[in-house]
Amino acid sequence: MVSMKDIGRICNVSEATVSKALRNNPKINALTRQRIQEVSRQHNYHPNALVEGIQTGRSKMIGVAYNNFTDSFAGAVMEGLLGKLGAAGYETLVICWDMIAAQGNQMLSRFSRRRLDGLLLFPMERLPSPEYQQELRAFQKPIVIIDQTWPGNEFSFVGSDNVHGGILATTHLLDHGITELGFIRYSRASSCEERWEGFQTAMRGHGLPVRDAWCVDAAGSADHGLELIRELLASPVRPDGLVCFNDYCALQALDAARELGVRVPEELSLLGFGDIKLISAMSRPRLTTVNQSPREIGRKAAEVLLSLIAAQGEVKATQARIPVELVVHETVRGACAGGERT
Amino acid sequence: MVSMKDIGRICNVSEATVSKALRNNPKINALTRQRIQEVSRQHNYHPNALVEGIQTGRSKMIGVAYNNFTDSFAGAVMEGLLGKLGAAGYETLVICWDMIAAQGNQMLSRFSRRRLDGLLLFPMERLPSPEYQQELRAFQKPIVIIDQTWPGNEFSFVGSDNVHGGILATTHLLDHGITELGFIRYSRASSCEERWEGFQTAMRGHGLPVRDAWCVDAAGSADHGLELIRELLASPVRPDGLVCFNDYCALQALDAARELGVRVPEELSLLGFGDIKLISAMSRPRLTTVNQSPREIGRKAAEVLLSLIAAQGEVKATQARIPVELVVHETVRGACAGGERT
Repeated sequence: MVSMKDIGRICNVSEATVSKALRNNPKINALTRQRIQEVSRQHNYHPNALVEGIQTGRSKMIGVAYNNFTDSFAGAVMEGLLGKLGAAGYETLVICWDMIAAQGNQMLSRFSRRRLDGLLLFPMERLPSPEYQQELRAFQKPIVIIDQTWPGNEFSFVGSDNVHGGILATTHLLDHGITELGFIRYSRASSCEERWEGFQTAMRGHGLPVRDAWCVDAAGSADHGLELIRELLASPVRPDGLVCFNDYCALQALDAARELGVRVPEELSLLGFGDIKLISAMSRPRLTTVNQSPREIGRKAAEVLLSLIAAQGEVKATQARIPVELVVHETVRGACAGGERT
Repeated sequence: MVSMKDIGRICNVSEATVSKALRNNPKINALTRQRIQEVSRQHNYHPNALVEGIQTGRSKMIGVAYNNFTDSFAGAVMEGLLGKLGAAGYETLVICWDMIAAQGNQMLSRFSRRRLDGLLLFPMERLPSPEYQQELRAFQKPIVIIDQTWPGNEFSFVGSDNVHGGILATTHLLDHGITELGFIRYSRASSCEERWEGFQTAMRGHGLPVRDAWCVDAAGSADHGLELIRELLASPVRPDGLVCFNDYCALQALDAARELGVRVPEELSLLGFGDIKLISAMSRPRLTTVNQSPREIGRKAAEVLLSLIAAQGEVKATQARIPVELVVHETVRGACAGGERT
């Protein structure tokens, strides 16, 4: 690859003149400028971003620590943030969090070596250890946490309005006269616990009891709750509606109901979370769910990070919640799918 | 963030001494070395990869141009390549090809500015334009193309052994006495055209005709062939087996069959490609398919790229095909799912 020095030699000018001409500095004679720019194009010269990064103290690179590459939710968040960062002239460096954890948590030193201007982190589902949080603080550049948070998180955060999602899902059932409700929790994910909080709020708001026996936690179970759901549906007194922490879990409930001969939605109404397109297209009956706008989460996270970078530490951490919306399909008894959004 | 100069000031030595001590150069007195390393740790110093990149002429960064972030196949390829590149000390910079195309094909100048050591490209489904191929050639660093290729592609390529996959799928049907076969093509993707080639080879090998009316191309259709499949299944003389170019297409065939009251697998056997886990878990009956080992494709592509980088242009482009395997579930009549791999 040709260097600025090479271009200077070809044009018989100094490297400094080339540098100025390429930035279209009017101090360089217009004809000379034109010639230098022309030669640079011909020789396929590209300015060296490494040099620029050292000169300006800004690498114009963002790190994204990410985990589940095969999950369409995380993928859609990535699309949203890449669009925003790319438009602002930032490149995105991707690290798989699981691999890093396996290599002994060296993610942050890798990011620091690259002089990244900021980080976007999808946390692992479990609470980061105090050592890890300490490492995050030592990074000294802006950080935005995406999707999952933890009590006392001091960093900026962008995620879904999960509490409202839980209220929406529960109220949808209650509005259709389905009031004997259960909830499948997943206590290791903050998003799921927030949905569970929304469920309880809606039940209390309607003066209805939250029955412990119908509210089970799938976090303890290897297969994310299939057994728990089977037991729940096979019990002599079972709920007539189930709010599930995500679409995958709702699919398991659909399978368990089919196995046990419990008709959905006639005998059991079901709601998921996530609006995974493949699931709403494939499930029979089609799953009613709550859409989380993952692209918008990605865009917003990038926007918050860019504003933190621009403010150079003068701005406090912020928390943004992206609105959710009910997607009515066919798994809630009596709910009309006419207003369906696809 | 502290610099090497700051560490030198604290330790009362030159920047050059700090640099040597951090690389554990024995020319520096052992105690001094230890002290400098200790102070660097305390102050959370990380060597500047931008400087190293300029000094060595190697940025130790790879670019990945990628498109469908919500697709689990591409996600699994990403996991494979990230693991391999990370273990070799390379970082991965990700660019969304669609966004770049929208911005006027500036991907390569973005990659060039960053002085990336190589590229991994998932091509868009259509043949790259001559201008685009010219741009790739001008990049002057190693390039490996993933998954989709084109006639006369001169770059290294890693993808599935699709021709063999087409033969495997077709032979599986023929072996179970299902011989009136159709094929749903997607002529814009090279992978699908290779599967189609495998189908024809297997049919000819068994002395069976390839019927034009039963082999339809979904590339022309906005909804990827649902209409075509409906027409095919509604025609007075229909096939008793269909090989579909991917799992999504096979799902459409399953839906079309359900709509028309054609029983799968009793009256129609079906095969997909891709072994998308969510699809094989959710489809009823569960879809028989061909697994492509996407993580292995990613690992191999990274391996080929790293060897091209190590050879510094002394090695020719290579083509690698990753083996595929049949995954027997429930959509082929008479095929036992006992040997099922999950």
